[in-house]
Amino acid sequence: MAQHSITFYPSNKVALAPTGSLLTESLRDAGLDLAQPCGGQGRCGRCAVIVESGNIRRRSTIRLSASDLEAGYALACQAVIEGDAAILIPEQEAVERRLVTDKTARKVEVPFAYDPIRDQTIRAFDLALDPPTLEDSIDDLSRLERALAAQDISNLEVPLPLLRQLGSKLRAAEWNVTAIIETDHWKRNTPRLIDVNPSGLKDPKGLDVCGIAIDIGTTTVSVYLVNLMTGEAIDTAAEYNGQINRGEDVISRIIYANKNGGLSEMGDLVRKTINDLIDRLVSRNKVDRNLIYKATVSGNTTMMHLFAGLPPASIRLTPYIPTVNHPAPLLAADLDLNIHPLATVDLLPSVASYVGADITAGVLASGLSEADELTLFIDVGTNGEMALGTKDWFVTCACSAGPAFEGAGVVCGMRATRGAIEEVWINTQTFEPTYRVIGEVKPKGICGSGLISLVAELFITGVVDKGGKFKLELNTPRVREGEHGGEYVVAWANESDLGRDIVITKVDIDNLMRAKAAIYAGFTVLAQSVGVDLADVQKLLVGGSFGKYINVEKAVQIGLLPDMQWERFNFLGNTSVLGAYMALLSREARSKIKAIAEKMTYIELSADNTFYDSFTSALFLPHTDMTKFPSVEAIWDNKEKQEVW
Amino acid sequence: MAQHSITFYPSNKVALAPTGSLLTESLRDAGLDLAQPCGGQGRCGRCAVIVESGNIRRRSTIRLSASDLEAGYALACQAVIEGDAAILIPEQEAVERRLVTDKTARKVEVPFAYDPIRDQTIRAFDLALDPPTLEDSIDDLSRLERALAAQDISNLEVPLPLLRQLGSKLRAAEWNVTAIIETDHWKRNTPRLIDVNPSGLKDPKGLDVCGIAIDIGTTTVSVYLVNLMTGEAIDTAAEYNGQINRGEDVISRIIYANKNGGLSEMGDLVRKTINDLIDRLVSRNKVDRNLIYKATVSGNTTMMHLFAGLPPASIRLTPYIPTVNHPAPLLAADLDLNIHPLATVDLLPSVASYVGADITAGVLASGLSEADELTLFIDVGTNGEMALGTKDWFVTCACSAGPAFEGAGVVCGMRATRGAIEEVWINTQTFEPTYRVIGEVKPKGICGSGLISLVAELFITGVVDKGGKFKLELNTPRVREGEHGGEYVVAWANESDLGRDIVITKVDIDNLMRAKAAIYAGFTVLAQSVGVDLADVQKLLVGGSFGKYINVEKAVQIGLLPDMQWERFNFLGNTSVLGAYMALLSREARSKIKAIAEKMTYIELSADNTFYDSFTSALFLPHTDMTKFPSVEAIWDNKEKQEVW
Repeated sequence: MAQHSITFYPSNKVALAPTGSLLTESLRDAGLDLAQPCGGQGRCGRCAVIVESGNIRRRSTIRLSASDLEAGYALACQAVIEGDAAILIPEQEAVERRLVTDKTARKVEVPFAYDPIRDQTIRAFDLALDPPTLEDSIDDLSRLERALAAQDISNLEVPLPLLRQLGSKLRAAEWNVTAIIETDHWKRNTPRLIDVNPSGLKDPKGLDVCGIAIDIGTTTVSVYLVNLMTGEAIDTAAEYNGQINRGEDVISRIIYANKNGGLSEMGDLVRKTINDLIDRLVSRNKVDRNLIYKATVSGNTTMMHLFAGLPPASIRLTPYIPTVNHPAPLLAADLDLNIHPLATVDLLPSVASYVGADITAGVLASGLSEADELTLFIDVGTNGEMALGTKDWFVTCACSAGPAFEGAGVVCGMRATRGAIEEVWINTQTFEPTYRVIGEVKPKGICGSGLISLVAELFITGVVDKGGKFKLELNTPRVREGEHGGEYVVAWANESDLGRDIVITKVDIDNLMRAKAAIYAGFTVLAQSVGVDLADVQKLLVGGSFGKYINVEKAVQIGLLPDMQWERFNFLGNTSVLGAYMALLSREARSKIKAIAEKMTYIELSADNTFYDSFTSALFLPHTDMTKFPSVEAIWDNKEKQEVW
Repeated sequence: MAQHSITFYPSNKVALAPTGSLLTESLRDAGLDLAQPCGGQGRCGRCAVIVESGNIRRRSTIRLSASDLEAGYALACQAVIEGDAAILIPEQEAVERRLVTDKTARKVEVPFAYDPIRDQTIRAFDLALDPPTLEDSIDDLSRLERALAAQDISNLEVPLPLLRQLGSKLRAAEWNVTAIIETDHWKRNTPRLIDVNPSGLKDPKGLDVCGIAIDIGTTTVSVYLVNLMTGEAIDTAAEYNGQINRGEDVISRIIYANKNGGLSEMGDLVRKTINDLIDRLVSRNKVDRNLIYKATVSGNTTMMHLFAGLPPASIRLTPYIPTVNHPAPLLAADLDLNIHPLATVDLLPSVASYVGADITAGVLASGLSEADELTLFIDVGTNGEMALGTKDWFVTCACSAGPAFEGAGVVCGMRATRGAIEEVWINTQTFEPTYRVIGEVKPKGICGSGLISLVAELFITGVVDKGGKFKLELNTPRVREGEHGGEYVVAWANESDLGRDIVITKVDIDNLMRAKAAIYAGFTVLAQSVGVDLADVQKLLVGGSFGKYINVEKAVQIGLLPDMQWERFNFLGNTSVLGAYMALLSREARSKIKAIAEKMTYIELSADNTFYDSFTSALFLPHTDMTKFPSVEAIWDNKEKQEVW
């Protein structure tokens, strides 16, 4: 049999391989083992390499997008050698990032060509005031206003705390000052004075006007620290929302807030989380917190209510009414934020009780609001919120996914922290699992992405049927009758950090199926409400931590996400904080978010007759109607032909 | 000698009197003694009666105005009987009030035809909201806004503390509410929500929208409680400014405020005074303080600064610059006022460091701003502030009168409280004094009005000369050489509550002369600045506690007030609080005060060359140039002819 020469870059190692052998074997021969968590089944995508030249046949490309193929990617475990070849092994980190689709990297790009004078509502005006004399004895404020009038600033609002300091600030600076002014906001077209600094005051880093963009997630709070002169995100930080111990989802938070003292406690908790993040950002970047003059805040409607101290009780009760979807901008001091006390805090607009600013901001950041084609945007956290439309119209709805995707409400569930099984592959022959654990330690439990991955594998490998029922007749000790009916052992007691088996039960699978069915039913109702089919959707934009961690292929396989061509998916990371960042920078972006909120048609699912039908149809793996999931159908066909599986 | 029959009403008593006898004698015969504190010299005006019919010759009318004469008034001690007559003795209280010229009675008239819908910025809108349903699920605030839009209220501002209560207030009222709204103010033409009450909420007195007008005097704080539905002043109250113990005049207050902690202490003190007055008003009228939604505040520039917590230091130092002459309206909560926390607190505009809102409000309340003729308005408290002009223009200035008019800085001086000698008359022959004591008790000292009265009498009776020097050669033990040069004994030790003689010294007279000279020089400079003569002034409007207590005739005699026909004087009481009351009621009145402040030309006396000359010329009794004081000259002429005196 002919031997072919396979050269691997960048190491320049060479292996000889016979026709028909797999690239994974040559890699092993060259001493270049790549991780193959799925056991070489072509389903995890971790062994992706780039074929620079040569004769390689791709046996399966399920994990590769059209653009991947164009770039020359192949999965080594599915690459059949038919001639000499030159293979580039990408840095493993890059592979990881491509697959995990985490675009929320530390370094965030400025999202557009930023011009602070055109775009920014926070402006610094350098003023050389004429010192007062007996002949020119107008009051201090009028003197400041006179100088500002020359810069087209008139009808200035001056908050009392600043007015109280005005005289001493002007005199201490010997009348040469920088006036920090908010020129306008959506509720007010007149300027407001935020501070008067001595001319040339900058913090040690040379900054003079900063802002923060905040996303208050039910689970995670993210903050960007931004230089408002350049638009650059100086740094970002994220932390669990301090409210988590008072309830994992919005409903339990609302119930807690309704208790005596609960509302102020919840407000304090989230404000402390934000202040801790601000502390971290200003201290590690050596930024003076008093130079932070503006904050934009995104989050779901309940999170916004709790942050602002608005009682959320009526959000939970029919007919599901928030106090306000779009509060006027507030002051940092009113919200106990540890930035400049007179900084403006702009809460982005929500649409309804369960469609929050995370969606309106996300629609802008995702590009849905500029889309020519029919586009579906989803942001699935603890709640599933989604919008369907084009640049001209949107419909939106929300459904309660429950905590299953966050690893709660499941026997061995846990949050996506150290020790969580985050991805699982099951061998089609032996039904033995391979898994990846966050932190590469002994597993303690299974997080949301691990659960999705696990249920998909159980289904694809035939361990459970379409109804999620275990096939107890399979010849493996992993499948067994447990306390709660059928169950599958992911890790035996001796492999686990718990000292007992880590399992997934029939009850867990039912929970997950209800959650995914609710979300898929949401898609269906949205599409039906405007008379289109889900298959007509040209782009599926995925925001939030959901898209950040899950394996989309698995999510499609369980019927959580609609089955469509790989290149139609776009994983955008935290679109909520990105939208807040855009709003922080730009008056126009801020207006667009407001216009998005106003334009959105909200569909209350609990009032929608078609929702229950769609939900019931989606209570299968992946769905009652398999024609909606052609890629999953293809796998089944393949499996029956026993070609790959 | 013919006897005439004199009938006195309302008692119907009759006396017989010969031709040429005085009415006072007939009164005594009829057993109807009237008080004659001046000893029957025709100078105190207390014995005024109304001649209903008959033949009575008025020997002197110096204490009677043209309108008094028209009404038939005569002074009994100057009324010579020449035939039968019918005499009405007015109630003595009415005489007192006419003479004391105190128009600040408990019951204040609504100053114009008040139409709350046209005039008032605080409005109560009764709204029957549609309760939310699944089909009509807009947020609470939008629901309120929708109902208000039907009443032409849009772009509503809702303060955060109220937004936090909005949902529960709407639900508790079952969606039938009264929205209390400030429709606009001079800085803002959009509405602000102050409260949302259950429909039909009224306090026990049936009130639903109230306000307060506040005048912060250096010495006295006055508050009116006003029903904003009718415009009626429900009640008024006044109390010493709690800052008095930290300094009697504005300069010493500024110095105190400049000490560590002094500013907040001064602010707390005056706010406590105001809150005590509010407590008194709401408790004795059984008004719910939470129904007070608006306050207007008048006072001099320093008082306004201390009230608002603005440091006044630069007011005192050349070039005398306040932080702000016209601050934007504030919230009651920001100023710790115990009324509705979101009530608007509107500080009326000042003109300069020493011409405050008491003057701009006073100019409106006095009618100067509507005057066709040349009018001089003065408000002399601890400071002397004045304005000259017509409805088309005003000039204004301020001079430090010092505390002499308030009874301080004088050996036996005291404030106008119980035990203070408030008026003095001296017999032209014996130089023995008669005096009136506040509270009709033994005297403890002499208050400002008593000092003015005393110095005038000393001058008119020839006890002191034009230079204020005592004539020690007079044949009376009352005039003597004391520790500080010449002095006059007003009360011997055995008549006084102190157990020692109550005297006025040469030094006291010099102090008072400097104070009156400063004020008169102010008038002179104002007149010169616009090229008119003081004699051209057609109206002299006197506001403030000054006009409330002094005997104007005496004030003219010492040269404190310009000498002009009696009917040109108009004593208006506290014009500052009256202006605040008008501003409280009416948007238009408020605009007028703003226009007054903008229209006023301020003359800084310390920068004015003519002031010192005028001051020096005025350092005599009544003035170097006696032709400026014809009525005083006439008394001297009379005196020399020995006809009356």
